[in-house]
Amino acid sequence: MQPQDVIRKKRDGAALSKKEIAFFVRGATQNEWADYQTSALLMAILLNGMTEAETHILTDEMLHSGEVLDFSDIAQPKVDKHSTGGVGDKTSLIIAPLAAACGLCVPMISGRGLGHTGGTLDKLEAIKNYRVQLSLAEFRSVLSRVGFAMIGQTKEIAPADRKLYALRDATATVEALPLIVASIMSKKLAAGLNALVLDVKTGSGAFMANEERAKELARALVKTGNAFGVRTEALLTDMNQPLGRAVGNALEVRECLDILRGEMNEESRPVHDLSIELTARMVALASGVDSSLQAARTKVKQALDSGAAFERFRLNVEAQGGDPRVCDEPARLADLTLREVHVESARTGFVTGINAAEIGRAVASIGGGRTRVEDSIDPSVGFLVNAKIGDELSSSDRTLGILYCRTQAQAEAAAARIRAAYEIGDAPLSSTPALIKDVISE
Amino acid sequence: MQPQDVIRKKRDGAALSKKEIAFFVRGATQNEWADYQTSALLMAILLNGMTEAETHILTDEMLHSGEVLDFSDIAQPKVDKHSTGGVGDKTSLIIAPLAAACGLCVPMISGRGLGHTGGTLDKLEAIKNYRVQLSLAEFRSVLSRVGFAMIGQTKEIAPADRKLYALRDATATVEALPLIVASIMSKKLAAGLNALVLDVKTGSGAFMANEERAKELARALVKTGNAFGVRTEALLTDMNQPLGRAVGNALEVRECLDILRGEMNEESRPVHDLSIELTARMVALASGVDSSLQAARTKVKQALDSGAAFERFRLNVEAQGGDPRVCDEPARLADLTLREVHVESARTGFVTGINAAEIGRAVASIGGGRTRVEDSIDPSVGFLVNAKIGDELSSSDRTLGILYCRTQAQAEAAAARIRAAYEIGDAPLSSTPALIKDVISE
Repeated sequence: MQPQDVIRKKRDGAALSKKEIAFFVRGATQNEWADYQTSALLMAILLNGMTEAETHILTDEMLHSGEVLDFSDIAQPKVDKHSTGGVGDKTSLIIAPLAAACGLCVPMISGRGLGHTGGTLDKLEAIKNYRVQLSLAEFRSVLSRVGFAMIGQTKEIAPADRKLYALRDATATVEALPLIVASIMSKKLAAGLNALVLDVKTGSGAFMANEERAKELARALVKTGNAFGVRTEALLTDMNQPLGRAVGNALEVRECLDILRGEMNEESRPVHDLSIELTARMVALASGVDSSLQAARTKVKQALDSGAAFERFRLNVEAQGGDPRVCDEPARLADLTLREVHVESARTGFVTGINAAEIGRAVASIGGGRTRVEDSIDPSVGFLVNAKIGDELSSSDRTLGILYCRTQAQAEAAAARIRAAYEIGDAPLSSTPALIKDVISE
Repeated sequence: MQPQDVIRKKRDGAALSKKEIAFFVRGATQNEWADYQTSALLMAILLNGMTEAETHILTDEMLHSGEVLDFSDIAQPKVDKHSTGGVGDKTSLIIAPLAAACGLCVPMISGRGLGHTGGTLDKLEAIKNYRVQLSLAEFRSVLSRVGFAMIGQTKEIAPADRKLYALRDATATVEALPLIVASIMSKKLAAGLNALVLDVKTGSGAFMANEERAKELARALVKTGNAFGVRTEALLTDMNQPLGRAVGNALEVRECLDILRGEMNEESRPVHDLSIELTARMVALASGVDSSLQAARTKVKQALDSGAAFERFRLNVEAQGGDPRVCDEPARLADLTLREVHVESARTGFVTGINAAEIGRAVASIGGGRTRVEDSIDPSVGFLVNAKIGDELSSSDRTLGILYCRTQAQAEAAAARIRAAYEIGDAPLSSTPALIKDVISE
């Protein structure tokens, strides 16, 4: 069998066999296939698709390209949440301690921000000295002591995904549904989970702007998880505007701390509500088929309101080397030398739409995110969103939000970009987008 | 502009602009694009196609990736013939001297055999000391003295094609129609032609087995040639069986010499007829719109029958360093130590079909062709076809042909392969395939 034979078969629209997919994944990872052969097949997969069976085989081969973690010595159910990414999407920092406080074990392997989307690792690194690069032994130790640990992708886990993702990024083949499914699920399955809740975002700031496509992705992810014996559920959630209030790493950590401390601003309500719902579903899935979602919601709310989740968060910061004083003094996260610029709308009216991706890119442009993988991040900069969809901008207050940045030139360029990202109409919308659009359970 | 942007655009089915295609061709050739980006775009082009306008731009950019020859100092019209390749397809060796004898200048840049197909350069090298690697100065000199010269692809001509072809071969993207058109035409246009006749093969031994696909290719080639101001015409010709009698390099040269000397075997009739027709069309195209094809046919036949074409061939062999004695003593081409094995059909009946590609591969398997580009060739081995489609295999003579090879093991394996390539039926076919299936003039 030659790489060309496999490429030709997919090029002509046929389904690949287990042997052929294994040959491809092993060949690509171990450089037995030339990168130009791998990328030709990736493009053929993007354009001709893969069946459900092929997608599961691909996931399995990518999963077994590396180490599969075994936390069976930890008694608690192993459960995780994964989001497809968005702007201001910081729920992991609330969900992980909240789930741990409810008796789950959350081995969270997260990513970094790229383009308009943020990444959990970047947010955590806004906490002074916080270490996201733990060894697997340290990961295991923090997990068993704290109930959750948050690390970056390691060399040992799904090396095939690292190889394929780099090629996909350089060849415009990121968007292929079976490749997305296999990429996400191979890493999640490698963490030895019992249950998984997926937060599939859709809207102007999501990776999948189109709702039907996002739903299709959610279904494929849920099917794959269940096929591998991991109880899996997905929520389809709104990303037509930044989630909550803060966009930018330190600002987002602060928003999470406010929620964990029970001191949240009303604009943070969607972060709060979505975190509760996702965690409740993790608890319900983990406890098995007969559990009541309503009871799980009550339990989760209590763990948040009692401060138990907040205490777990503090324990984790200590265990992962971060400065725990930020928990009680969130102002320590901020850089006081930053410029604070009010961004105002040029006109009055009602917010009818927000290009959330543009808000993300505006924050990235002032150092809060990455255009290229190798870019470094300025944790302190960002944007606090004031005007959300449905809000009125009156002559007395036309503030869209507050920009935190380093220079006047940055401020002007980013403010212009943010202003352009807002659609302002004369009349209020008849309804604002629902936060949770759908639940996909099988 | 990033390579990803161009790849994404074609991936999504849009037409690329001149600027984007130029960026791609230059990037691929000068390694500003990674090979994996180039191959991803090649696959997207294969699956999503290119418009006629895009194909012309691609051809133009590939043409100008290298040197464009200028033979304007030679008074005769510059005309060439190009075949898409087949089994036993040796007409170039007759057409080039025949066209030269009719007053045309034929700057022929040819290829080598690969897989089941033969290549003109390999055939010429069956003549002792014949040099196909001339410098451009030598090429020009032979052309002006002899009226035709035959060389291999040079580094100077269409380097983009060399780069892209190597990637296409390794990524199952050879079959993309716009890529085939640009590959063929960029090299032909680089030879500074006034007119071009294409021999597009279809059938079991052709690159395009499917007749409709072959016709589509012929149309695209003709359109592109005419768009560049080269008067271009294509014949769609039969490749459902080896052309003429010989398959194998020295055997094929000998068949051509027999035709040029007026001593041909009746089984060579299709080679003779097709060579006359293709040359007549070259003569007619070269002399302009008002010329009569019938008059051209008469002129060409005369040049063959008079021995003028044969004398041109001899002059060329001398000019390109080959041993001219083979012209008068064709037996000098043969290696007398070879085994001569009669291949017989296991059953009697009528030949209803031949897998011509398998005949080509059987000859390649005994050293007469290449499986990989780096394989070396044994010029002497080959197969002389006796039974053609429509022929009867009776109990007194069931000979399919004669195999010339080195070892008994080779003989047995190749004979089995050849036998399996024949379809034998109980009744004769109502008609045998027409040699010329169609003429495409615009």
